[in-house]
Amino acid sequence: MHPHVITTGGTIDKIYFDAKSDYQVGEPVIGDLLRQMGVAFEFTVESAMRKDSLDITEADRALIRDRVQAADSDHILITHGTDGMVTTGLALVREAAQKRIVLTGALQPAAFAGSDAIFNIGCAIGALQCVDPGVYIAMNGRVFPVGNVRKNLEKNRFEPVR
Amino acid sequence: MHPHVITTGGTIDKIYFDAKSDYQVGEPVIGDLLRQMGVAFEFTVESAMRKDSLDITEADRALIRDRVQAADSDHILITHGTDGMVTTGLALVREAAQKRIVLTGALQPAAFAGSDAIFNIGCAIGALQCVDPGVYIAMNGRVFPVGNVRKNLEKNRFEPVR
Amino acid sequence: MHPHVITTGGTIDKIYFDAKSDYQVGEPVIGDLLRQMGVAFEFTVESAMRKDSLDITEADRALIRDRVQAADSDHILITHGTDGMVTTGLALVREAAQKRIVLTGALQPAAFAGSDAIFNIGCAIGALQCVDPGVYIAMNGRVFPVGNVRKNLEKNRFEPVR
Amino acid sequence: MHPHVITTGGTIDKIYFDAKSDYQVGEPVIGDLLRQMGVAFEFTVESAMRKDSLDITEADRALIRDRVQAADSDHILITHGTDGMVTTGLALVREAAQKRIVLTGALQPAAFAGSDAIFNIGCAIGALQCVDPGVYIAMNGRVFPVGNVRKNLEKNRFEPVR
Repeated sequence: MHPHVITTGGTIDKIYFDAKSDYQVGEPVIGDLLRQMGVAFEFTVESAMRKDSLDITEADRALIRDRVQAADSDHILITHGTDGMVTTGLALVREAAQKRIVLTGALQPAAFAGSDAIFNIGCAIGALQCVDPGVYIAMNGRVFPVGNVRKNLEKNRFEPVR
Repeated sequence: MHPHVITTGGTIDKIYFDAKSDYQVGEPVIGDLLRQMGVAFEFTVESAMRKDSLDITEADRALIRDRVQAADSDHILITHGTDGMVTTGLALVREAAQKRIVLTGALQPAAFAGSDAIFNIGCAIGALQCVDPGVYIAMNGRVFPVGNVRKNLEKNRFEPVR
Repeated sequence: MHPHVITTGGTIDKIYFDAKSDYQVGEPVIGDLLRQMGVAFEFTVESAMRKDSLDITEADRALIRDRVQAADSDHILITHGTDGMVTTGLALVREAAQKRIVLTGALQPAAFAGSDAIFNIGCAIGALQCVDPGVYIAMNGRVFPVGNVRKNLEKNRFEPVR
Repeated sequence: MHPHVITTGGTIDKIYFDAKSDYQVGEPVIGDLLRQMGVAFEFTVESAMRKDSLDITEADRALIRDRVQAADSDHILITHGTDGMVTTGLALVREAAQKRIVLTGALQPAAFAGSDAIFNIGCAIGALQCVDPGVYIAMNGRVFPVGNVRKNLEKNRFEPVR
């Protein structure tokens, strides 16, 4: 496995600027995190965009699809904001005839102590090398086929649709 | 998936006592970590022993085997010291005809900032729900079948044998 | 020393809500932090308000002044947003004829890994028990008399005026 | 204030080696920590030795005394293991006729999440610029004159002698 990572922004990459008293989507964190964790595989990272998932448009999703198609690897990990993650995953189903695609993100920015970011990335990496071709969401410690998952906004967690 | 977690000690559970200027294997950390990460599944945790993996004997491995057999769940996650992890995994191959068994641990205690513990647990959880029945080692971001993995002591990481 | 802590909000208490993709001023963190650090003195904590410092009005400052006057202790620690910290400090000079008042805060929320919050609080606590009566700002590892300090917005740090 | 920092080892600098399943005194952490905290003053750091405080001898204390005397600065911060910290402090009283000397350390290694290291260093830095010449211990959020402090081994914290 030589996974290709495509980053799109979202809470996982949020950082805090005091000057503006505001959060912004910063540099993708996943490359540094994977290196700190001492992963024993090669990987590549590509930043497709830096957006909150609520701001991701159909044009953005077409771009993500292009990047997936263009990737040499058959193992694709996508970091994404949680609100539009399922919609983006569904838009990639056709590309996943040959590829394994796992989307993940975080409910708390990776910069926070106690964030779920590093756990979710671990879960996504673990799934990526074991699943059949297809599109999956790795959140809350579960690996969901993209056709059977939604974000429960009230409980702020992912769950199966049925 | 309703995984059963069996803890055996190891670096992942190491804590530091100032009074003795020494470390000891403490309470298993995995239950608290999984809850903090907001996992959306039920799980049970059982502490089989609290040992450095270098101190784990054949009798200990027989006990771990008993606990695996006795578990109601077909998804077993075992936290273990890294030095004897492969040996323990090999001792469980017969039990894995029906079950999925993933062993993981950490090269740095979970109490350390920047420890690989939470990432490794995520990777193990991700693998556990996607693999076929068998015994696997989830370390360094990889999911190894137990028959093709060793700890490279010099590089302090896990790698395939061939 | 039995310090009285008055919290007013600010970056130090910022937390992140995924649902709204937004931050808010949360519960004051200082009480929990001081307990975690194992401080060997008694202290009291009072939440006067929960505001960004840019939103603090003259009426708010009058309220803080009242709380300082009402406090039994002669050692007052105030956590405050960084932008209006000096202005609030100057408004307390009259109250400090008998009391030692140290204001501190953080440039990064305490919830962030690597935040300066716990260091700044330590610095403020260290100063509080050693200074003469007066009003001081403890930021960036320095203890400034309130009459000779400003926040350099460009460098995002505190410095002496002259 | 342009403090000079002398490091001697102790728990604050303990790191963990998996290969040996053991802790060792590592590189001094204080320089990196002060830079991360964004301190707005210049400082110098000198590593005098790397020892558990139980291993510090009279010869080591003579060496520390020499380093204090040789320092250009009148503001000396010493990081030290907690068990022998008071003894070392008492050995420096004569040197402190002109200088301010504050000793600090940690009950948990700085590498641990939730360690008291950064708080204690903050407290020491805050005290260093406010105290009269003399030798002080900054631990557990208190700034003790070295003549009136002991480590209570049972409670694992520092307290006044009387």
